Amino acid sequence: MIAPTIPLAETAITPGAFEVLVEDRSTAARRGRLATPRGTVETPAFMPVGTQATVKTLHPDEVLATGAEILLANTYHLMLRPGVETLERAGGLHRFMGWPKPILTDSGGFQVFSLVDRRTIREEGAEFRSHLDGSPHMLSPERATDIQARLGSDIAMVLDECLAFPATRDGAAASMERSARWAGRCRVRLEQLREGEAAGVEVTNPGQAQFGIVQGGVFPDLRAASVDATVAVGFEGYAIGGLSVGEPIDVMYETVAATAGHLPESRPRYLMGAGTPEDLVECVARGIDMFDCVMPTRNARNGQLFTSQGRVNIRNARHAEDDGPLDSSCSCYTCRRHSRAYLRHLYMAGEVAALALNTLHNLTFYLDTMQRIRKAIAFRSFETFRQEFLRSVSRLAVES
Amino acid sequence: MIAPTIPLAETAITPGAFEVLVEDRSTAARRGRLATPRGTVETPAFMPVGTQATVKTLHPDEVLATGAEILLANTYHLMLRPGVETLERAGGLHRFMGWPKPILTDSGGFQVFSLVDRRTIREEGAEFRSHLDGSPHMLSPERATDIQARLGSDIAMVLDECLAFPATRDGAAASMERSARWAGRCRVRLEQLREGEAAGVEVTNPGQAQFGIVQGGVFPDLRAASVDATVAVGFEGYAIGGLSVGEPIDVMYETVAATAGHLPESRPRYLMGAGTPEDLVECVARGIDMFDCVMPTRNARNGQLFTSQGRVNIRNARHAEDDGPLDSSCSCYTCRRHSRAYLRHLYMAGEVAALALNTLHNLTFYLDTMQRIRKAIAFRSFETFRQEFLRSVSRLAVES
Repeated sequence: MIAPTIPLAETAITPGAFEVLVEDRSTAARRGRLATPRGTVETPAFMPVGTQATVKTLHPDEVLATGAEILLANTYHLMLRPGVETLERAGGLHRFMGWPKPILTDSGGFQVFSLVDRRTIREEGAEFRSHLDGSPHMLSPERATDIQARLGSDIAMVLDECLAFPATRDGAAASMERSARWAGRCRVRLEQLREGEAAGVEVTNPGQAQFGIVQGGVFPDLRAASVDATVAVGFEGYAIGGLSVGEPIDVMYETVAATAGHLPESRPRYLMGAGTPEDLVECVARGIDMFDCVMPTRNARNGQLFTSQGRVNIRNARHAEDDGPLDSSCSCYTCRRHSRAYLRHLYMAGEVAALALNTLHNLTFYLDTMQRIRKAIAFRSFETFRQEFLRSVSRLAVES
Repeated sequence: MIAPTIPLAETAITPGAFEVLVEDRSTAARRGRLATPRGTVETPAFMPVGTQATVKTLHPDEVLATGAEILLANTYHLMLRPGVETLERAGGLHRFMGWPKPILTDSGGFQVFSLVDRRTIREEGAEFRSHLDGSPHMLSPERATDIQARLGSDIAMVLDECLAFPATRDGAAASMERSARWAGRCRVRLEQLREGEAAGVEVTNPGQAQFGIVQGGVFPDLRAASVDATVAVGFEGYAIGGLSVGEPIDVMYETVAATAGHLPESRPRYLMGAGTPEDLVECVARGIDMFDCVMPTRNARNGQLFTSQGRVNIRNARHAEDDGPLDSSCSCYTCRRHSRAYLRHLYMAGEVAALALNTLHNLTFYLDTMQRIRKAIAFRSFETFRQEFLRSVSRLAVES
């Protein structure tokens, strides 16, 4: 055995127990704490994306060093490779990947819906062919729930129908209604699992929470109806899906504000798939507690780096002899140890080491931003922080 | 400034000072210590290859964790990118790449000679076109010496003519004689640099040692003549070049034994570009003190891993559910934290993290092997160690 089983909390916790510690006075921002079987998550929180059971380019100790308290992993990718059975026999996803803290798994729906030519959606669920080998698979609300139980994640997501932008009102309505029906089926299945009434599925993490997902596109009345339907089912937390898919930024912010405002105050609110550093601050101001996004990791691999003074394209020739750190305000390994000149050299020379050093920095920048947001809310200075942050990150135009 | 200048030793050292601590009784193996301006190197030593100012996939702290005490860097690659001027303005190669321990630089000759269609060799030196942009460059014995002085490496190599295998006796003789003349010119130039008589070249590391290189192909009399000519010039150490280029293994071992036997006992002996773990042990037994090779790092990136029980191809399906460590005798991060199943998953999924974890292990295996060799010589048990090592590493056939 390579590593001890990652221990669950010794005393049973209420799945998804959430506490709001401080509410901001001038915005909808709140400072909170989410309990999971593998430790608490201070909110507002950012979840790095570990698609294939790894945060790309980093090993677990490096991810911990960025300050991350929870990761997101993708059920679609993991069910295809290495496969649910392999992960189950390895003692679950945490032990397989050597990550000791909480993991949120998505339902796989988003990836399946993006396989436009390879999937068929019915009321029962989604049939699709693997992008790896064309093998046929089925993802239903019940199966998505079972798979996440078998992976042993700390927070599971319901299977929802993901709508492309733009969508007609009728399309968005029909899709939202199906998502609401599927949410109900996911919850019924989870309760069967909790009661031990689901033959053949071993529940390794009885404290797993389940979050519902609000859909409805950019139509305020559909969003409100989706909130009502999802809250009526009853989950430990609520996500806002179907945003950050190409809609104008002000539409996204308005939809977030309206939707978050309808959600229960006592439950965590998770905005799926967003966003830029500015989006994090702006959506915290609108009541969001949790985020995930591939932007810090993907941009790092493309040489696009986030700093306290704006974005930096490390390929730019102006950095070729820059002896200074990437971000003098940052305490990550990359900024403590290396110059912009060296980072540019590694990137231009095609060295893999550049990808890890860049990722380490971008993730640290995101996690540091969340920590600053939490402190600002706690110290009653969030609105001041927000104005200063937006000024500084946009001080330099994006380097192309 | 991103990092302090890597300090040189406070008191002046004799460049290349070398001490033989223990001589093995039954073989030509010896346990020694090489002094450099940036610390001592315990020998026999293995030098990981940091071609482009980085050991591929790792950052400096990870390389230090493998136990490496000295790196090799490639002058050819560095002179083209980022360029000697950039490295000089950055305060030298050590500071640029954040590596605090000794560095040996090659002369660039080996890479230039491999540019078969892009180079012209004359007595003056080698003219070549960059593999990056076709720009014309010249590498002469004097220029190779100057560049290495400007990089500030701790050990510089002479420019030699590198012969392909197989070669005719006449070809090998002519090439060996030219290498000897070039060695003389390199030494004259180094002495000019040391005396401050080389206008325009700033010597940042006055304790830099210079090693000569013995050539002569697989012809014993040419090797002996090359030793005589190179030792007559006089260097702080001597390398054996032109081996590990395709000749049969027994011919390599015989040539190493004969050549090392002719070299001065009081100076370090460096076998360039070798080899497998078995080669390290066998060539230590024949009197070699220093090695470099891309095998541990390159094989790691191809999924070929060295273990105390033989070689492992991590892509092999038999590892898909193997919960055990890659090598239970290894204390590297990879072996302490991850299972074979996880390493295989990362590799098959094309994750960059696999390359770093594999490299970390393979380098640790090489450096651990050197440490075991050094201990065995010191404890008078080298011959026993050698027999057991060869039995264990060849216990399993190479996995394909």
